[in-house]
Formats: sequence, C-alpha cells, structure tokens
Amino acid sequence: MNALVIVAHPNLADSPTQQFLKQGAKLTTAKWHYLDPLQEFSPATERQLLVEAERIILQFPLYWYGAPAILKKWQEQILSTNFVQQKLKNKQLGIVVNTGLPEKDFHSGSKVGFSVEQLLAPYQALAHQAHMHWLNPLTIYQFQYLTDTQQMQLLMDYQRYLVQPYPDTLKTRSRWYLKKMQDLSFRDEQSSLIQNTLKQTTAELENNLSILAMIKAGEDEVNG
Amino acid sequence: MNALVIVAHPNLADSPTQQFLKQGAKLTTAKWHYLDPLQEFSPATERQLLVEAERIILQFPLYWYGAPAILKKWQEQILSTNFVQQKLKNKQLGIVVNTGLPEKDFHSGSKVGFSVEQLLAPYQALAHQAHMHWLNPLTIYQFQYLTDTQQMQLLMDYQRYLVQPYPDTLKTRSRWYLKKMQDLSFRDEQSSLIQNTLKQTTAELENNLSILAMIKAGEDEVNG
Repeated sequence: MNALVIVAHPNLADSPTQQFLKQGAKLTTAKWHYLDPLQEFSPATERQLLVEAERIILQFPLYWYGAPAILKKWQEQILSTNFVQQKLKNKQLGIVVNTGLPEKDFHSGSKVGFSVEQLLAPYQALAHQAHMHWLNPLTIYQFQYLTDTQQMQLLMDYQRYLVQPYPDTLKTRSRWYLKKMQDLSFRDEQSSLIQNTLKQTTAELENNLSILAMIKAGEDEVNG
Repeated sequence: MNALVIVAHPNLADSPTQQFLKQGAKLTTAKWHYLDPLQEFSPATERQLLVEAERIILQFPLYWYGAPAILKKWQEQILSTNFVQQKLKNKQLGIVVNTGLPEKDFHSGSKVGFSVEQLLAPYQALAHQAHMHWLNPLTIYQFQYLTDTQQMQLLMDYQRYLVQPYPDTLKTRSRWYLKKMQDLSFRDEQSSLIQNTLKQTTAELENNLSILAMIKAGEDEVNG
C-alpha cells in the first residue's frame, strides 16, 4: 500500500500524540509528510506526492472543531477542482484526528453537540467530489490519558489505518495482523518457539477465515 | 444592534460578492472588519472588538467546504476556550457564506453530499461551546447569476441579518422593514406623499401585528 500521511500541526515537536504516531508510521511503508509552517509549499512537489499515493491520510489535531489553518492553506494552494477530480479519483482519503476533549463530549446534546464525523463533513465532501473512497476517520480522544495497553492498541490501529488493504473487512484485518506478527517474529531469529506458535495460529486463523467465508456464502444464498 | 462583521477573503477587491455586501453593510450600523492577509493580528484589538459586539458575523466564501485559511488562523491566534466561554457568552454568532456551486449541489446524494448548514457544523459547535445564540447561516449561492431583483432582496436580507433584533420573528422582521422604509423616505424631504403613505402603512402593519399577536395568544391558550 502506497500511503501518504500529510501531517498538519503548528509545532510537531511539542505534541506527544504526533511523536507517538510518527513512531507508528515508521513501522509501515507509509510516507510521512509534514507541512512545515516555516516553509512555502511547492505545488509541483505536493501534487506529485498526491499523484503517487494510493491512500492519502490527512492527520491533524482538532482545532476549533476543524483542521488547523496550515492544512487549509495547503488545500487552497495545492488543490483545484480539476486536479482532485482528474488525479485523485479512486484513491482513498482518510483522516487521523486527535482531540483534547473526551469522546463523551462529541454527541448531540453534549458539550460540542456534534460527532467528530459530523465535524469532518467538509473532508467527506471533498472525497465525494473527487470520487475518492472515504475511510472512516480514526479519532484519538485525549491521547495523554491512554493506558499502555490502549496505546499499544492505538499503535496497531494506526498502522492498519495507514497501510492495511482497502476495504477494512474481517479478512483483510486478520491477514494484516498475521503478516505483522510474522514480520515481528522473523526479526528475532532466536524466537523459534514464537515463530512456530505463530505459524500454527496463522494456519488456524486462515482455516477459520475459510469457514467464515463458507458460512457467509451460505447465508448469502439463503438471503439472496 | 452592535454588530461586527469579520470578513475573511484572500483578495477582497477581486470579489464582486464581497464588494456588494460591503455596500450593504454601509447601509447599517454594523462594523465591517476585514482580516487583512498581509498584516499580523493584534490579539488585544481583535478581542476588544469581539467583546464590544452584541452580534458577531463571520463572512467568507466556502473554500473546500469550509472557511478560508485566514479565518482559521485568526481563530487559532485570537480565541481560547476561556475567552469564548467567559466573554462571548449570550452574544449572537452568525455566518454569511457564499458558494460557487448552486443550491442543488448541496444535498445528500448530490455533488457535494452535504447541506451548507452541515458543512458549517464546526461553527455551530463553537457557538454551542461558547453558549452563544446561533443564527441560521445566510448562504449566497452563485452571486454572479442573481437577477437585479434577487440582488435587491439579498441586500435587504443581508442588512436584516446584520442588525435586525434577535430573534428573527414576523414581528421583528416587519418592524425592521418599516423602520428601513421610514429612514429611506426621511432622507428625501420632497417625498411627503411617500411619507404619508408609509405612516399609514406602518399604522396598518402595527395593527395587523397586534391582531396576529392576539390570535397567537389565543392559540397558545387553546394549545397550552
């Protein structure tokens, strides 16, 4: 998966969330592309990056319920209706967004009054206009309060969001986890026990997936 | 009505829509405040303007289904959670937005897939968080295709949006129109005939409003 992560943040070094995600992105083949507020954009370079990517991820903290000014500036300088419709068609567009408020505040009747997905409507509209595939946003609520286990889960979810094949189904997800486990174990030549266990687990999971596929096919026939 | 119109546009002189609205704003007591992209903001000055206003209007063209970068930059530099909750509470927040696409494109299933109101959710969330009164946005679709009559109607609607007392009811609206007509006629000392007609119309309308109010009160009793 040729993925491009466009990171919009006024001060990357000061953001524990972004530093954490940067480490996560390094574990994948995704290209990390930071929009440096101190530099001018080169439209030719930016457009080339977009054209080469199969999946485009916009990553930013939620500022006043939307993207930071730097991303809007980038959109205004780089994108045009013709460009997005001709060059971005059929690519995938995803959003990785982090918030300072907890999840419970993002509902009608709560503090914010809208879900994060509702607030990101402008980006879904962009995907819609460009005939891109819209990936459900990956929202990180209050990173600083995540437990170690939650951080590890986020690390996995984030990597999957960046590079797991589209669409996100039980099958693509399971295959991705298996591949990841194999990659990790092969790095450590001494872990033959882990490798053997993983191979067995892999076989079992592949088998379960086949069974699930058959059950699903049967259901489709019944329902069809 | 002490209204502040914050205008965000990268190049005001090149926008027929903004030039038209500027003329409209001049016919009211609203303060026109242009966010000059070539100048730095003075947080103290900007905050003072906000504190003094009873109604705050954000006015901009829809760029990539949201506000231009200059407005986002202003929000990031001027607003804070404490400031909006402590200083903007109970004020009114409105949006005047113009689009290059026609109204028919702003529906689910259409080109954009969202209504303008849905795309402006981040601003409604801001109003919600700040405990401000949210004014339904005034949307101007494809200004360049408006007929003379439609432009005149827009000029009236825009002035009402800027300074007509809150909330927008039949009564406040009628009173505003009457006031406007009287103001216009008093400018021309020779138009005594028009003045007399207007006075008569005013009396009739006031009378009708009283009758409407009585009918409404009666309905409320029946329904109450």
